Amino acid sequence: MLANTDTKGRLIIVEGIDGSGKSTQIDLLQKSLHSEGYSVYFSEWNSSDLVKSTTRLGKSEKMFTPTTFSLLQATDFAARWENFIYPMLKAGVVVLADRYAYTAFARDVARGVDRDWVRNLYSFAIQPQLAFYFQVPLDVAVERILSGRAKLKYYEAGMDLGLSDNKITSFRLFQQRIINEYELMIDEFGFIVVDGTQPVEVQQAQMRVIVKKALEGWKGLPAPGYHPRLSLSKTLPIEAIKGGKKK
Amino acid sequence: MLANTDTKGRLIIVEGIDGSGKSTQIDLLQKSLHSEGYSVYFSEWNSSDLVKSTTRLGKSEKMFTPTTFSLLQATDFAARWENFIYPMLKAGVVVLADRYAYTAFARDVARGVDRDWVRNLYSFAIQPQLAFYFQVPLDVAVERILSGRAKLKYYEAGMDLGLSDNKITSFRLFQQRIINEYELMIDEFGFIVVDGTQPVEVQQAQMRVIVKKALEGWKGLPAPGYHPRLSLSKTLPIEAIKGGKKK
Repeated sequence: MLANTDTKGRLIIVEGIDGSGKSTQIDLLQKSLHSEGYSVYFSEWNSSDLVKSTTRLGKSEKMFTPTTFSLLQATDFAARWENFIYPMLKAGVVVLADRYAYTAFARDVARGVDRDWVRNLYSFAIQPQLAFYFQVPLDVAVERILSGRAKLKYYEAGMDLGLSDNKITSFRLFQQRIINEYELMIDEFGFIVVDGTQPVEVQQAQMRVIVKKALEGWKGLPAPGYHPRLSLSKTLPIEAIKGGKKK
Repeated sequence: MLANTDTKGRLIIVEGIDGSGKSTQIDLLQKSLHSEGYSVYFSEWNSSDLVKSTTRLGKSEKMFTPTTFSLLQATDFAARWENFIYPMLKAGVVVLADRYAYTAFARDVARGVDRDWVRNLYSFAIQPQLAFYFQVPLDVAVERILSGRAKLKYYEAGMDLGLSDNKITSFRLFQQRIINEYELMIDEFGFIVVDGTQPVEVQQAQMRVIVKKALEGWKGLPAPGYHPRLSLSKTLPIEAIKGGKKK
């Protein structure tokens, strides 16, 4: 139920559970597009200033219900959509988003929110030109998260669902529910599935081929100072990525 | 698109533009029901603690778009609905609400938000047993507001819509849009229309007759210490209302 509106710009988004590697990939793609001379805008999930204080309060005081959590994140998204993402798309910019409405469709439904209701909630937004879904087995993702993180947070672990008193068990059960929702969305929204267990540079090479094809012949807003455009593959050699670490 | 769910309790709400007199009426009804021995819970629009800080920030910095304003107020409503209103209804309490989802349907659409979208937003809530709509001509309501208030606020006056640079003109145009939406909802949601230009005690007498009939034979949760119930008309004489001032 996202609008099929055409914009002057191009919207490319990545989705996947925590630990799927999507953030690394969109970051590499951003650098590559930037070095190509594209005007790129990057937007991250849950990052608007408007609702920050309420998000903090609700999390620290555990005040959220699935519905209020969902509505607040939609408010955050709407603020980013209306003030940044959509204006950038109208201006002809390539907008990259680390998580999009689909994150709400996956997480909120995993929390028990109605599938249609949450889809309608985000119906003011458009369907991206490209939506990459980084598919990884639960164990791989959980291992990546737990090895890199000090502590899981309450809502992150889905502790509000009462699935388990153990944070790690709860996190695993919650993530599996999210995976189930993502899998259902592959067909529903035409996700491009990337095997997130492959080496970073292999995934990135696959992404670039697809992005290059999607941007072929397209004329967006050029970044100031960049001209003429080089080919996507020439700018940031895939080999250079190897050993690159997450930001 | 509100659910037609039956609850043990009873939900009675009032709607109307600012200056329609609805708050005075629900306040009097509350006192009357309370003195009858009913267990009564009162809920006011935009009053949850969860989103307070964001509402304040958004208003002072004029950060809201119609969509983010709508979503944030829905978050506020959902917090009150899930934590208070619905549990009270399940317990068998009479819940009185000064403004309900219909306020969003009127104001948000007056701001340009899609009619169906906002109705879906509130679809987790139920249709009240009684919804009173206080109908007053624009001039009457505006005169009441302007004579009692120091200054109209930015969003209250609908200044975000750019209808006029003059706050009072903008307020009038905005309120007229809201009236138009309310009028469309009379049939859609079966509003009980009360002529808000009548004397306070006449309106209250009309309300009580309707409420009395709706509560006839209904057994809710009795208020602690109240028994047996007196008749609604005996408890707070209509005559005593005359000259009563707004809280």
